[in-house]
Amino acid sequence: LVNAQGEDVVAGTRTPNPLNEANKTEDTQHLASLETAMPEVYQQLVTIRNGLEKHYHDMQDIEFTIQEGRLWMLQTRNGKRNGVAAIRMAGEMVEEGLIDKATAIMRVQPKQLDEIMHPMVDPKAEFKAGAIAKGLPAGPGGGTGQIVFTADDAENWAKDGKQVILVRNETSPEDVHGMHAAEAILTAKGGMTSHAALVARGWGKCCIVGCSALQINAKAKTMIVGGKTFKEGDWITLNGTIGKVYEGKLNLIEPDLEKNKDYQILMDIADELRTLKIRTNADRPEDAQQARDFGAQGIGLCRTEHMFFDPERILAMREMIVAEDETTRRKAVMKLLPFQRADFKGILAAMSPFPVTIRLLDPPLHEFVTLDDGQITELANELGITENHLRNRVSALHESNPMLGHRGCRLGVAYPEITEMQARAIFEATAELTKEGKTVFPEVMVPLVGTVTELSNQNAIINQMAADVKAETGVNFEYMVGTMIELPRACVTADEIAKEAEFFSFGTNDLTQTTYGFSRDDIGGFLPIYLDEKILKNDPFQSIDQNGVGELVKMGVQKGRSTKKDLKIGVCGEHGGDPDSIDFFHRAGLNYVSCSPYRVPIARLAAAQAAIRNK
Amino acid sequence: LVNAQGEDVVAGTRTPNPLNEANKTEDTQHLASLETAMPEVYQQLVTIRNGLEKHYHDMQDIEFTIQEGRLWMLQTRNGKRNGVAAIRMAGEMVEEGLIDKATAIMRVQPKQLDEIMHPMVDPKAEFKAGAIAKGLPAGPGGGTGQIVFTADDAENWAKDGKQVILVRNETSPEDVHGMHAAEAILTAKGGMTSHAALVARGWGKCCIVGCSALQINAKAKTMIVGGKTFKEGDWITLNGTIGKVYEGKLNLIEPDLEKNKDYQILMDIADELRTLKIRTNADRPEDAQQARDFGAQGIGLCRTEHMFFDPERILAMREMIVAEDETTRRKAVMKLLPFQRADFKGILAAMSPFPVTIRLLDPPLHEFVTLDDGQITELANELGITENHLRNRVSALHESNPMLGHRGCRLGVAYPEITEMQARAIFEATAELTKEGKTVFPEVMVPLVGTVTELSNQNAIINQMAADVKAETGVNFEYMVGTMIELPRACVTADEIAKEAEFFSFGTNDLTQTTYGFSRDDIGGFLPIYLDEKILKNDPFQSIDQNGVGELVKMGVQKGRSTKKDLKIGVCGEHGGDPDSIDFFHRAGLNYVSCSPYRVPIARLAAAQAAIRNK
Repeated sequence: LVNAQGEDVVAGTRTPNPLNEANKTEDTQHLASLETAMPEVYQQLVTIRNGLEKHYHDMQDIEFTIQEGRLWMLQTRNGKRNGVAAIRMAGEMVEEGLIDKATAIMRVQPKQLDEIMHPMVDPKAEFKAGAIAKGLPAGPGGGTGQIVFTADDAENWAKDGKQVILVRNETSPEDVHGMHAAEAILTAKGGMTSHAALVARGWGKCCIVGCSALQINAKAKTMIVGGKTFKEGDWITLNGTIGKVYEGKLNLIEPDLEKNKDYQILMDIADELRTLKIRTNADRPEDAQQARDFGAQGIGLCRTEHMFFDPERILAMREMIVAEDETTRRKAVMKLLPFQRADFKGILAAMSPFPVTIRLLDPPLHEFVTLDDGQITELANELGITENHLRNRVSALHESNPMLGHRGCRLGVAYPEITEMQARAIFEATAELTKEGKTVFPEVMVPLVGTVTELSNQNAIINQMAADVKAETGVNFEYMVGTMIELPRACVTADEIAKEAEFFSFGTNDLTQTTYGFSRDDIGGFLPIYLDEKILKNDPFQSIDQNGVGELVKMGVQKGRSTKKDLKIGVCGEHGGDPDSIDFFHRAGLNYVSCSPYRVPIARLAAAQAAIRNK
Repeated sequence: LVNAQGEDVVAGTRTPNPLNEANKTEDTQHLASLETAMPEVYQQLVTIRNGLEKHYHDMQDIEFTIQEGRLWMLQTRNGKRNGVAAIRMAGEMVEEGLIDKATAIMRVQPKQLDEIMHPMVDPKAEFKAGAIAKGLPAGPGGGTGQIVFTADDAENWAKDGKQVILVRNETSPEDVHGMHAAEAILTAKGGMTSHAALVARGWGKCCIVGCSALQINAKAKTMIVGGKTFKEGDWITLNGTIGKVYEGKLNLIEPDLEKNKDYQILMDIADELRTLKIRTNADRPEDAQQARDFGAQGIGLCRTEHMFFDPERILAMREMIVAEDETTRRKAVMKLLPFQRADFKGILAAMSPFPVTIRLLDPPLHEFVTLDDGQITELANELGITENHLRNRVSALHESNPMLGHRGCRLGVAYPEITEMQARAIFEATAELTKEGKTVFPEVMVPLVGTVTELSNQNAIINQMAADVKAETGVNFEYMVGTMIELPRACVTADEIAKEAEFFSFGTNDLTQTTYGFSRDDIGGFLPIYLDEKILKNDPFQSIDQNGVGELVKMGVQKGRSTKKDLKIGVCGEHGGDPDSIDFFHRAGLNYVSCSPYRVPIARLAAAQAAIRNK
């Protein structure tokens, strides 16, 4: 900037001239660069910059002034940079030997990796467009597509080769097929741990939730934003990294991790330095493969409940739920066996030879029987009972506090045939794959254990099934049975539980709910006030509460290992992908963390940083 | 029994002859007694019996046989006895110097006191009548009355001098006036900790819940049991000690504690030996007085929410809840101030000079806005908003898991005007009573604290109100501010919380819910299976789970006192009246337990036994 002071730069009222010819942009093309205007001063500046960067081992943010042709250095500090730049610089500097490996790892903030893993809305296009609404940044990256308002439309339009964005007030498990088909998801309601947010993050899909400016009319297939009405088929673009919604089809910049040499260098160093293993939470073979590409060393949480929402299966599931005696229930349950076996075979094969932790059925059963009138008629016919009778059965399943109700291993204890079926499916899949020459290792995980007697009850069934399948198939295979540690009582009595468990996996989502007495679904009612009033420093579902929940985790580790010195212990809650939480888990002595596929690189880097920090 | 063997006695096929003349009953009047048939053998038996009872310091259950005129002693053991007999014998034997005080206390099972504290169904009448149904014994003693099906009917009939039994599918806070007016309460649904059970036990009222054989038609005012239809006004009798329902009006035997000398002796000894103080849970002056008569040394839990269901107050309460801005809310809240002040004045005066722990508003607000169409119209008119708008407000308060939702101190943090009003009401009542020369001591208790910052937020408001009231009235008074410890996180961080708390009171109901992840309202879905399968030894809401919940209690005590050596600590959950739990609380070092009024004598005895056992 000629004839100006520092304030003019900061105020942004004038456009600074470019430093050199290479730096020129479209906007500054017409201005003379320092390089051409004052070549000597420019050369002097370059020499000083090189010296400073060598000295500080980091990119420098330098202030200088030129008075009457003489260069004055005013200030220098480590430069702030975006993710792309941070990764490139750390990679280049370690390659050049300017910094050592540990320093390179510490130079990149784990969350900066997000920027190179997802398609990004072209910043220039974004700047020009101006956002029409803002919500919570629930799934990173950019997405562009035509608006649809139902999951079925999303699936059908996608089949026709269209790019769609699914717009809903909120999503439920029955929307999953449409969410999967969509380029991105936009909801008017919900927080960072709502259904849409969790699913999208798991897939690394662009997603914005809680965008309250939207008035959605799903029947009329319209949404109104800021007075303007959008119809089905209209194009919009989302920037899920910052939560902004744009009208029209903006240009996206695609990531290319494979070709990003600096990323590869950094990840190799991270793997060398970290001691925590990194697994992934994945329910489908495609997700498992994606996570392996990102460096996952096994599955830490394969949920089985999502497998039941498929239209072919949900009927059998519902028959099972409303069954009134064991014979009927067993018959319905066993219809699910072939589906589950195929599911498990797929995911065990995709992860071979790494271990796969499969969690037995966890959610309250009434989640599967949210039925409309047509579904009531269909199911009542199928079961040969009256609709009224069916309605009564369904309403009898209603619970005041389902999160604290009949779920987790309480289902398996009450309905042992469910555990039998799931265990049998796992072991039959294992036997088949072993026969095919694949190395697979299932870890059967019993959810929501509060007392060791629950686990021994379920263990007996699972081990019996393993013995049966071995005898029937003549195939020998290895497996483990362990438990989620997700209730305060499980932490307090971990020494007893460890007698029956071959591994522990902390479910820190549920553990946070019960330790704090916070429902994840209802915390939205008071969390904003709690953050405003500084009663909480941050959302305990995003980053683990080290003083409270963390103390129980440490107690669980210590008591568990007091019974079994080498007990394998991991974590499979949302916290497994949060860098601060990963640092805590490293210190607590866990063996691994498990996170959604798109967080695996973040977790690898964070684990390496934890190892360096706590050496 | 002449010409017979022991088996004939055990088999019960023949009626044994009476031992002596004094022992003859209506049924054995015609049989010769041993005393007259064989006077010498009888005298020999009496001498031996006296010797044995002196030796064993207890009533003896003796087996003997007489062969050819010679007495043979076969076996002797301490006799089993019912509550009435146990108390009489312990009292008499300690008076006679046969046993020492500690032995006398250990001779009576605390729960046996129930038998002498309540009206009892005449056993002979009961035997003849034969039960028509059986449910859970939720409130001890007997009750007889005419059936009514609504709380309003119960109140109106009782005003007309009738004895009624309130029969409902289940009860809610809006039924409390009718429950209070009824002699006894009978419900078709609910478990031992359902609303009806908790309220009835608090009042020492006869109550049977979960009597599933009843088919109640509240509209038609009929109930069908075992094929027979009962109408409004028909007489039934309940034995709440064992859960049996009888047709008709059976004779009741009234208790008379005042005249029961042995009870008084025992209670005096218990008070001398115990170290735990006994308080009561009471929300109304009458209950407080009742508890004092039973020996309570203060109120450990005065809930304030029940005070709002009165028709005069509920409207202001609802206005407060649906208010959308602070001004409207404050206006509605302040309408409640005079009512609350009068409530607190009554209860503080009734308990003077003992301390009264008053818990600030705890339940989720939507509990107060279960409205029918008429109430919607009335409230909408009152507020000057449309019915639709009101309906939307109410449905926005709906929570997925209200137990883990926006309740407890989370209300006071979000709506500080509620805390202000309640604190002001407490302190204004305190100032007025102090001026009148009464010694009163309020302990303000903040519920559901999970982090110390919540408590400091509420403390600031409460202390400000105390200072304001002192300044306004010119009256000086003492008070304390403390907190419930009812979340695992509160136990884990009790050292931090103790910095802001002048006392702790464990809320072991909620602590059990969160530690186990069991909803009290939903546990009925799987508890029976858990007990059958021996996964749980007993209902953890009845007797505290010492290994799990108890460990957290011990941690809370130890951490709390690590910050404040002499921190006053009590318990105010249902467990405060359970003898096994009281033994645990004694060992954990608590200062007091608090229980419903009719459990106070039980708690006094159990506390004395705990002191003896753990000397």
